[in-house]
Amino acid sequence: MASDQPEHIVRSYEEELRKLRDMVARMGGFAERQVHDATQALLRRDAVLADQVASRDNVLDQLEREIDTFVVRLLALRQPMAADLRFIVAAMKVSHDLERVGDYARNAARRAIVLAQQPSLGSLNGFQRMSVLVQENLKLAIDALVNEDADAASRVWAADEPIDNVYNGIFRELLTHMMEDPRNITAAIHMLFIAKNLERIGDHATNIAETVHFAVRGASLPEERPKADASAYAVVRPPEQG
Amino acid sequence: MASDQPEHIVRSYEEELRKLRDMVARMGGFAERQVHDATQALLRRDAVLADQVASRDNVLDQLEREIDTFVVRLLALRQPMAADLRFIVAAMKVSHDLERVGDYARNAARRAIVLAQQPSLGSLNGFQRMSVLVQENLKLAIDALVNEDADAASRVWAADEPIDNVYNGIFRELLTHMMEDPRNITAAIHMLFIAKNLERIGDHATNIAETVHFAVRGASLPEERPKADASAYAVVRPPEQG
Repeated sequence: MASDQPEHIVRSYEEELRKLRDMVARMGGFAERQVHDATQALLRRDAVLADQVASRDNVLDQLEREIDTFVVRLLALRQPMAADLRFIVAAMKVSHDLERVGDYARNAARRAIVLAQQPSLGSLNGFQRMSVLVQENLKLAIDALVNEDADAASRVWAADEPIDNVYNGIFRELLTHMMEDPRNITAAIHMLFIAKNLERIGDHATNIAETVHFAVRGASLPEERPKADASAYAVVRPPEQG
Repeated sequence: MASDQPEHIVRSYEEELRKLRDMVARMGGFAERQVHDATQALLRRDAVLADQVASRDNVLDQLEREIDTFVVRLLALRQPMAADLRFIVAAMKVSHDLERVGDYARNAARRAIVLAQQPSLGSLNGFQRMSVLVQENLKLAIDALVNEDADAASRVWAADEPIDNVYNGIFRELLTHMMEDPRNITAAIHMLFIAKNLERIGDHATNIAETVHFAVRGASLPEERPKADASAYAVVRPPEQG
């Protein structure tokens, strides 16, 4: 805060940083809500809600564009330095992650529309649990950005493993359903992709946490993080052939 | 180019912009190669190549971090304006997309390792075709950034539809295999996810094109783009029950 700057300019810069913080927090909240509603649509077989989620996705696209424009303007007019600069750059990267989160929620919602018309298949508890975990991580990651809290970011970054474990459980259960009866396959495939969407949303929460850590500390987290998703290696045998 | 700046400073700034361009081009080339090699590993059932792809992914993570650090330094020291500023911001966003592309290629490669040990299932022509199309789009999108060519970016943005069509064909074929024989399910699921990975990589090429268009023109492309992926709505019936 250089003393030769008129105070109203300084205040206005602080206000702009606060506005950027608010924009990202709002976008994060909206993304969380999309994840929440997409999951509720699946659990309640509610095609109307699913359709609303899909049609609301453009709000996130619009918010990302607003943040981009705001950031470019802020960089040009304010020429921020050091921690402010890293925060501003992080805000833009995070908005990009949130836009992707929205894409996954929309994709899950579209599949929930199809599933609402299919016979139901097994328990959806795993989906409920995964959804709560990824929403929580998203919220914590965005809070870490808004509060510039590197320790909170590190905790989110390390908290992805339970999500992967639930995903692996869902994956195996769905494969079993598919092998038992080919009539389950269409529904199971859609559910598998929804589970994958939730898992990817969890990955984006982790990405956001990495970005926040870099922004606050000016240094990266270690390259490898705990990762329990073993489904890419999974081989499940069909039941005995009759 | 203010005349009161010593010329070596001006040249050095141009050099830095060129260096950033080179870094992104290099990262783009590496991401394309990862997509290429992951697909080759699938087609040739080559687990060794697949393993190389998976273990090389950290190169992209490292390049993204280098670009981030370089951009933050450039913004702080050079305080670029207008088109330069938009280009620099775009380079950072694009590197984030390329890191995600790498994640998808790695995931595809891991699945190719499993598939190399499974009986083969139908034709892989669709995968070959999809992979060529997404690599082409990635290359064109990165070229558009490097050449600051908004028209080229618009063309990439509109060229996603053929990729989605190939994906839809693969999706239906794999579902048919699964319904015919439950012993096909494990392999088919892995192939389905690989096809989805390639489709997502195509989405990222489209994202990059949008970013480039915004950087060059300072204005966004329209919100809705041509989209032919109907698989989220797909219902495929099992064959007649005997």
